[in-house]
Amino acid sequence: MNSGKFLTLEGTEGVGKSTNLAFVRDWLEARNIEVIVTREPGGTPLAEEVRGLLLAKREEPVNQTAELLLVFAARAQHIAQVIKPALARGAWVLSDRFTDATFAYQGGGRGLDKNVIQQLERMVQGDLRPDLTLILDIDVKLGLTRASQRGELDRFESEALDFFERVRAAYRERAVANPKQYAMVDAGQSLEKVQQDIDQVLQKLI
Amino acid sequence: MNSGKFLTLEGTEGVGKSTNLAFVRDWLEARNIEVIVTREPGGTPLAEEVRGLLLAKREEPVNQTAELLLVFAARAQHIAQVIKPALARGAWVLSDRFTDATFAYQGGGRGLDKNVIQQLERMVQGDLRPDLTLILDIDVKLGLTRASQRGELDRFESEALDFFERVRAAYRERAVANPKQYAMVDAGQSLEKVQQDIDQVLQKLI
Repeated sequence: MNSGKFLTLEGTEGVGKSTNLAFVRDWLEARNIEVIVTREPGGTPLAEEVRGLLLAKREEPVNQTAELLLVFAARAQHIAQVIKPALARGAWVLSDRFTDATFAYQGGGRGLDKNVIQQLERMVQGDLRPDLTLILDIDVKLGLTRASQRGELDRFESEALDFFERVRAAYRERAVANPKQYAMVDAGQSLEKVQQDIDQVLQKLI
Repeated sequence: MNSGKFLTLEGTEGVGKSTNLAFVRDWLEARNIEVIVTREPGGTPLAEEVRGLLLAKREEPVNQTAELLLVFAARAQHIAQVIKPALARGAWVLSDRFTDATFAYQGGGRGLDKNVIQQLERMVQGDLRPDLTLILDIDVKLGLTRASQRGELDRFESEALDFFERVRAAYRERAVANPKQYAMVDAGQSLEKVQQDIDQVLQKLI
């Protein structure tokens, strides 16, 4: 039996990830593809507990290396318990964020050394990489305005504008460097147009 | 001003760490040395939350790399928030466990690749190493009998006998390989004799 495909959806705040995650899931299911929808950080009970630690606002300043290692700890658990078993039995996996978010948020946003992130990527993932990463790209201010309408912001959403500009730039850089894995969609368009673009990307994949 | 010294206390279950940690603290304070007593995993609010995740018994099998990364995440936070600031202002730090426990439990006990642990040690600690590591060494069965009298066992204490034999062997191996940093004390002796031995080690240090 063929191994399933591993799809990830990425983007800064307010980019429409939830809506378009559901769109991709429905698109695949309409073609009789079994798809496991999951998210990072999280995806297993332990990894979701780590997510809680990461997102909580706290008085204690969070050391950047500690944050990075928590992200990869949750990822190791997620891969072992959810992603690899699903792919192995032929299901597709669709994850709301994966390691590109680490390169974008901890690398781009926080300025952590990219080589350190790559070292952890090798340690935790071996040669596991997404077959397709959809990056929803949007003007940072527009995205934050949308996100702020959702209610109280978490520890990441509370960062300043220039943090998200760096996150966005890191995503774009990764997409440009490896067009075989990445597809960047302009999420500033109407939802209909965004989903037409996603449809075209998915058509090419199957 | 001189930087403080960094002392760690290690050993398998039931070795008498708590009692002897207090002995070392009292010994130093009696000589007017300011000493911060701390522990791993833990030592800061966030790191203690990670400790909670690590020790909890859970139905979900915990991936070994996830466990290792959680340990080092807590350590990065502990170093940044507690250990380095204390040493920098001249206080001594006395920690109940540190990275030797990772080499012993995750390396020796679980069989994780020592090179991976060393990679994380460099990433998280730079060149920070304890000035002295006291290893309390005891027959594993005797130690577990003592530990079991404390009540319910956590996820590590519930491991089998051969797990702790490997942990003990890893501690001993590290002590033998680097006698300048390590002092091994026979914790199977009477408490009085154990503390005489610790006293001698500390005399040499100051």
